Amino acid sequence: MTVEQITHHFLAHRNVTNELINKIEAGHYEYKPAPTSMSAFDLSTHILTSFYAFASVVKSGDLSPLGQKADFSGKSLSDLAAEYTQKTVDVLRSLSEDDLNKAIDTTAAFGRKLPGSQLLQMAIDHEIHHKGNLYVYVREMGHTDLPLFVQFG
Amino acid sequence: MTVEQITHHFLAHRNVTNELINKIEAGHYEYKPAPTSMSAFDLSTHILTSFYAFASVVKSGDLSPLGQKADFSGKSLSDLAAEYTQKTVDVLRSLSEDDLNKAIDTTAAFGRKLPGSQLLQMAIDHEIHHKGNLYVYVREMGHTDLPLFVQFG
Repeated sequence: MTVEQITHHFLAHRNVTNELINKIEAGHYEYKPAPTSMSAFDLSTHILTSFYAFASVVKSGDLSPLGQKADFSGKSLSDLAAEYTQKTVDVLRSLSEDDLNKAIDTTAAFGRKLPGSQLLQMAIDHEIHHKGNLYVYVREMGHTDLPLFVQFG
Repeated sequence: MTVEQITHHFLAHRNVTNELINKIEAGHYEYKPAPTSMSAFDLSTHILTSFYAFASVVKSGDLSPLGQKADFSGKSLSDLAAEYTQKTVDVLRSLSEDDLNKAIDTTAAFGRKLPGSQLLQMAIDHEIHHKGNLYVYVREMGHTDLPLFVQFG
């Protein structure tokens, strides 16, 4: 897999994530399908910040980006979706083949070392998983005209 | 990607799918989170039959497996999960390198030709997506002790 193929696969899902996020009105930010669920706001920002953190871990070669705290104050989910998507694409496109191949010590987070490419595969799986959660949230908010789970082409 | 790597990635998610399916009691088979949602039974069998059909398309080299109708009568979701998972692993393990590389005419379904390996990647994405839906269903049924979205190792 090249960086361009990974970025393409990421965006084929992220563009759909953002389409769903853009349907969530501010009045629904605290919506939870069940008492133990993440709120719509927390789930959306979890998706956005996680991929950015995973990509940043591959770039830096260590787990330090996982500890960064984000400040969402005063921003809408739509603003955050646009901002994080751009930041994530920028990091992905800056990765070298060496970044993809080198093993990163992710033992503290995942119990073992992982090559950058495998960490990005896990990041894409994580995005699809939580986007799958988000579809149910958005349908429960009353939206019935929802996009296909991935963009082709 | 080798057939063994693809099978491993498939099972890392399918084992979690099955863990969720096994939590769904017969009294909840018709449960829907929203009026336009698939029922828990339909969503579960859609996940199980889709991957089997995608793998069979890669094996046969044409779209004919997509037209096969399945008969679920008298079977529990747990039975179906075990049955389809085994059948799917059998097909995946029978694939050759040539099956993974050759372009399949999937124009009628996806608008273009796709190599077998890419069709299987889409099948895994499809599984993760709908498993992500299923997490919300199962949480709404009252289950709070849910597995991680993917099995490591």
